[in-house]
Order: sequence, then structure tokens, then C-alpha cells
Amino acid sequence: MSGELLVAPEQAEELLRRMFQAAVAAADPAKVVPAFLPEPPAGRTVVVGAGKASAAMAQALEAHWPGPLSGVVVTAEGCAVACARIRILEAAHPVPDARSEAAARAILDAVSSLSPEDLVIALISGGGSALMALPAPGLTLADKQAVNRALLRCGADIAEMNCVRKHLSAIKGGRLAAAAYPARVLTLAISDVPGDDPAVIASGPTVPDPTTFAEARAILDKYGIEAPAAVRAHLARAEEETPKPGDPRLARCAFALIATPQKALEAAAAEARKAQITPMILSDSIEGEAREVARVLGAIAREVRRFGQPIAPPCVLLSGGETTVTVRGDGKGGRNVEFLLALALALKGERDIWALAADTDGIDGAEPIAGAIVSPDTLARAQALGLDAKRALANNDAHSFFAALGAQLITGPTRTNVNDFRAILVL
Amino acid sequence: MSGELLVAPEQAEELLRRMFQAAVAAADPAKVVPAFLPEPPAGRTVVVGAGKASAAMAQALEAHWPGPLSGVVVTAEGCAVACARIRILEAAHPVPDARSEAAARAILDAVSSLSPEDLVIALISGGGSALMALPAPGLTLADKQAVNRALLRCGADIAEMNCVRKHLSAIKGGRLAAAAYPARVLTLAISDVPGDDPAVIASGPTVPDPTTFAEARAILDKYGIEAPAAVRAHLARAEEETPKPGDPRLARCAFALIATPQKALEAAAAEARKAQITPMILSDSIEGEAREVARVLGAIAREVRRFGQPIAPPCVLLSGGETTVTVRGDGKGGRNVEFLLALALALKGERDIWALAADTDGIDGAEPIAGAIVSPDTLARAQALGLDAKRALANNDAHSFFAALGAQLITGPTRTNVNDFRAILVL
Repeated sequence: MSGELLVAPEQAEELLRRMFQAAVAAADPAKVVPAFLPEPPAGRTVVVGAGKASAAMAQALEAHWPGPLSGVVVTAEGCAVACARIRILEAAHPVPDARSEAAARAILDAVSSLSPEDLVIALISGGGSALMALPAPGLTLADKQAVNRALLRCGADIAEMNCVRKHLSAIKGGRLAAAAYPARVLTLAISDVPGDDPAVIASGPTVPDPTTFAEARAILDKYGIEAPAAVRAHLARAEEETPKPGDPRLARCAFALIATPQKALEAAAAEARKAQITPMILSDSIEGEAREVARVLGAIAREVRRFGQPIAPPCVLLSGGETTVTVRGDGKGGRNVEFLLALALALKGERDIWALAADTDGIDGAEPIAGAIVSPDTLARAQALGLDAKRALANNDAHSFFAALGAQLITGPTRTNVNDFRAILVL
Repeated sequence: MSGELLVAPEQAEELLRRMFQAAVAAADPAKVVPAFLPEPPAGRTVVVGAGKASAAMAQALEAHWPGPLSGVVVTAEGCAVACARIRILEAAHPVPDARSEAAARAILDAVSSLSPEDLVIALISGGGSALMALPAPGLTLADKQAVNRALLRCGADIAEMNCVRKHLSAIKGGRLAAAAYPARVLTLAISDVPGDDPAVIASGPTVPDPTTFAEARAILDKYGIEAPAAVRAHLARAEEETPKPGDPRLARCAFALIATPQKALEAAAAEARKAQITPMILSDSIEGEAREVARVLGAIAREVRRFGQPIAPPCVLLSGGETTVTVRGDGKGGRNVEFLLALALALKGERDIWALAADTDGIDGAEPIAGAIVSPDTLARAQALGLDAKRALANNDAHSFFAALGAQLITGPTRTNVNDFRAILVL
């Protein structure tokens, strides 16, 4: 790179913040919902929905909808916003409670007895599966939870968990859309899952479910799960399958992904290009233990500095997805700040590298903190303050670490969620 | 991608093998040593060396050296090759034994009493630190081992370990070069360490050591290590520092990196280009838990397929470095095959993605197997054979898994080592 550098080192952090803001803006319901709204129908318009972003989506819809509408949407505590015509409910997340069940009933009620002239708009986003939970007839929430816990313990993968869940539910796996028949159904979805599969986002209440009761039984058998008797009986009866692809009741359903992790990363990439920084999107769906992910991405950043590969600096390596933290200590942390602390240790103060990692919903872990920023002098500043970075990582105490450095990123709840955002800037 | 694909799916595995062969060839002493040989000196030529590749380096040198020479080189068991004029010793790896000490004495003897007209050629490669181990006067191998174990247990990083080791050694940290003074010293090195730092490869026996006795003491204090009394006394005496940068005894030393992980990856990249496959080198030094690294690189491969980013297919993602395996089971495995098994699980049979991972020394783990190959049908074939991929991974049993599939990569010892090689091919 010859010539004048457009981004000076002292502007690095500001550029990272702008990229994160661009990513969140690309998933902001107020900005993205309007373009996806259809013409009002001849009949009624009923809005339903579930998810952390769904109240904000409802507010945006209400603000731009030219005709009459009504409806009910459930969101997580802290994510509610004021709506005039759409009722906003709150329920527990990530473990469903009685409010989740009441919300699911209210939503099914809202879409029942509609006519072919009516339109249902379903506002679906991450978290919707827990927030809108209705056990199939004869089952209780406790039955479902027992099976969920057993599946988690035995290491079932997400596809297996979803198959069983959908067959214990009265609303997931396309049943909400079937309940709305013969009305038209338009789903507007914000994805927080790897692959953006509509059948996976909030367990796909409005899309066909290719899995079957027989498969759900086979999964419980495979892992030797001792399910409650009511669950065994329900799966054995196999009454009323979930709607399958081609089901005529879902023939008038449309689905639009209005925000995704990839689109958010592309917005950040565009922001980088404006500053003449080459963006490289590594992946929209990185999973894995946060501290190990940090070592891998740190190694790629070092390769940029040493060899100008996979791209030459000045550049930014962007990634999304959702890492995990195996909690061993008792500190205050979150997966994004744990990633950053491990990244700082991996980079060992290497020159010209900055990084930002944050949860796009504004809450990393349990704290009202979105994430943090790492700079080349992070370790040196920590040492000067008597902070032991390795010890903080061992104690899962990254929020405290970055708080002491004044390097936290605080946005407040963004009321959307396209998962984690990571940017590593190499000048 | 329009037009004819030059690499058909049935050629994918063969292309991966060719890329691995190209990577190993780029580090093959027989191929790379000759170009780095200097003019014979007016005086004697003495060859010394230590490392897994050092016997093969000696053989290559001998075959191309126009004048008289003598010397002694130590390598690991199984890595010896026949030399006519250079004596080849074997010692234990990774934990040094009495043979390591005898080898170090023989090497110091060989370079003592030389004149300014003489030339020492030092052949250094990975493993040399353990294979050529000589405790400082007053210390025993057991003393050094006790400190090493304590440092490992307390989580000291590699730089800290090296600082202490160099100050407990009579040959590391430039002392070999100092012993050869006033002869000229040319070091030919094959790197297996992240960053290719000459002071780190085999603990830098022929390069200046910027670290000090005081720093070594501070590291033991920092971790509260109860070192043997002889070690404490030796560090406190601080007699005869390691040669520092600018030391006149090392003024006639030259150092050449004749093979590195990066050069090996670049050779594989060139092989890919010949087949019109775009190569992308992600990093020459990826570290981290093998199964977690697999999830990250798998996510990047999925991004290639879904979004054509960070590059469009057909392409190959190349990386080097050294992952780790936290052993929890009792199966037969190695870090490269563990990586591959986790990658297969992460990719879930995704179409058009193949991968090869192998240790460039030909030995992944304790087995005489270099690595393995994953194809889109790996999981399906395993299932057909009644193999449980998840269980095999949980039991660290990846060698058995790939053996059952006939997907192992067996090369025999390559007698060189530029660490791990990973290639993920997306057509």
C-alpha cells in the first residue's frame, strides 16, 4: 500500500464503530420493514409475530401501513415498544413460561376464522420459538421442557431438536400458517440462525415442515430418551402431521427474509469501502468456543500483516454467527467480549490491528453491554492498570476487563438480532 | 461459475493429494538444501544440526558439497537416513533423554577449536530443542525437566518457556554459535513455528538471545514455581549470559530459512492454480483446539458455497500451523484427523466440499499415518458402515474412523516438518 492512508490509527476505533452501526442499521426493523410491505388486502389485515425483534417490527409496520389492522405480537422482556393497534405481549426467554403459552393461544385466536380475502402478516425473529410455545393437546409445558432438557444433555443436534419440538407443539412447524387458512400469509423474518433456513428461524411456525412423527420417535429412540408417558403417547398416536411441503393450506403463504447476518455484514463491508478499507467477509455463521475462534481469526489477521494474505492491508475481516462460552469462572462476561479478550492475548499487542466484537441485539451475555473494542495497546494498558488478561479470561471476566479499560461498547437494546458481529481491522 | 469445470468432482481427492505433495516437496531437504549451499571455505567444513529434518538435510548437503566435510547431526527416532561423512545420531522426542545430552556434547565438540578459515553449517529444524539438550554446568536433565513441567502446568506461554530454557542450557540461545567462534557459521533452518522466528526454532542455538537471566528469574517468580535448588542457584549466579544481539562472537553468523509453513502453502497454491482453482491462504500458523478450528474453517467453506465469499468457488482454502487436541477418550487419533472428523460433522455432507488435513512430517499423532481426506459423502458412507462419527470424535478415535472408510492418507515419514497442512476444496 503506497500513498496516503485514508484511515489513520487514531480513527481506527471510530471506523469500527461505524461498521457495527451499519450492520445493526441493516437489521433495524424501522429501516427494513417498510420496503417489504404488500398492498393492503380486500379483507382484514391481522399482524402476529414472535421474537426479540418482533415488537419493533410491529411498530415499523404500524407506522407505514395505509389501512386498518389489528393483531398481537410477543417479544422478550425489555424488547417491547409502544404500538397503537397491535397488542404487544412479553414472555420469558430462553426458557418459555406460562406467558409464552398465553401468547401462543392469543396468536392462534387472532388468525382463526379468517377469510380468503384476509391477510396475515407474521413477524418472525430469533427467540420466537421460546416466546410462543404451545404444547400439543394432551401435553404440558413441563412435558416439553423435560424432553428439551434430555435432548440437550445427550448431544442431539439442532435439526434433531427441532424435529421433536415441532411434533410436540400446536403452533410450530407450519401449524400457525395452517391455522390461518384460508387467509393469505406473508411472513417477514429476521434471521439469527446459520443458513437462514425459514424452517429453523423460531421453529418455522409459518413454513412447511418436512420432518415427521416417525422421525421424532426415532430420535428419542436413538438417544434412549425416557420421555414422559404423555409425550410417548402423543408421538405414537401421530395425529395430524405438521403441514408438509405442498400442503394446500400453505399454498398462499409467502416468506421474505428482511434481515440476515450476511446482509448486516455486507452493510459493514460497504462502510469499510467508503473509507477505502478492503472488506473480507469470512463467514456469516461462525460457531465454536469463543476463545478458540479468537485464536483462528487472530492467526488470519497475523497472516494479513506478515504476508498480505488472504488480502493485503488496509483491510477488515468481518464475520458473524454465534460462538459459545464454556463457563468455568465466576466473572462477568459474554461470548463477544470473551472472544475479544482471547484475541488480544493471541495478537500479543501486534501493531496496526484493532477489533470490535458485539452482539447485534446490544446485549452480550447477561449485561446491558453490546461488546468491546481491542486496540494494539490493550494488553499494555491493562498491564499498566495491574489487570491480568490471562486471569480475566480464565475467570470468564471479560466485561470487567474491558470496563476497567474504558473499552466497552454500550448501545442499549437494539430491538433486533442478527447474532454476533466481529470486525478485525488491519491497517 | 459458467463454462467447463476443469476439476470434476471425481478428481477432487487427487487434486488435494497433489497439493499436499507440493507442500511437502517445498520443504523436502533434498530439493531445497542445494540452492542455499555457500562456496566451500579455505579451512574445514563442519556440519552440525538437530531436528526431525536434520538428517535428511545432512544427506542433501553431503550429496551436493564439492569439498571435504565432517560433522554430527541428531535427529528423532525413525528420521535417520544414511550419510557417508556426517555422523547421524538419534535421540528421544519430545522429551529429551541421555542421548539428547550425548548428542549436544558431540555437537559442541565438533565446533570447538575451529579457526577463522573454517565454516560451520548448522542444520536446524523442528524438534531440535529436545533432541539436542545440554544442561548448564551444575544442572541435570532432571532439573530442566522439572522446571519444564512446572512451566507447562502453570500456563506459561512459549516465549516465557523459551527464556527459561535458554538460561538453563549450555547450547541453546546462541551458545552453539558462540562455541564455534571464530569460525563462520551458516544456519540453514526449516521452520515449524508460528512467525518463523530464528530465536524460537529449536530454541535458537545459533542466533542471539535478547532475553536475560533476570527475566528467567522473574518468570519463575511470576508463576510461583518452586524450582530445584540447583536451578535457583544457577539463575541467581547468572554467570555467562547468552549471546546478545551485537555479540562479536556471532558477527560472522548468517541465517537462512530454507523452508517454512508459508512457502509450503504457496507451493500448494501454485498447484491449485494449475488446475484453475483459486487458492486462498488463510494463515500459516493456525493454533487452537482442533475440533473448534474445524467449526471455524467449516463456516468459511459454507460462506464460499452460499455467498461466494471470501472468494468464489472453485477455490481452495489453505492453512498451516499446529492445532491441539485435548484428549478425553481412548481412541486412536491425531490433531489433523480430529480436525477432519469435526469438519465433516460441521459440514453435514454439504455438496461440493472436500478436505485434506495432514502433518507434513507424515505422522499425525502417534500413528504412522499422515492424515486423511473428507468428501461430501464421508458421513453417509460412515453411517452405511454403522460408524458413529460423533461418538468417534468424542472418543478421539479419528484414525480408526478414517481407516474404516479407507480414507487415510499414508505417506511414510517425510523427514521434514513444516507443521500441519489443511486444504478445503470447494468446487
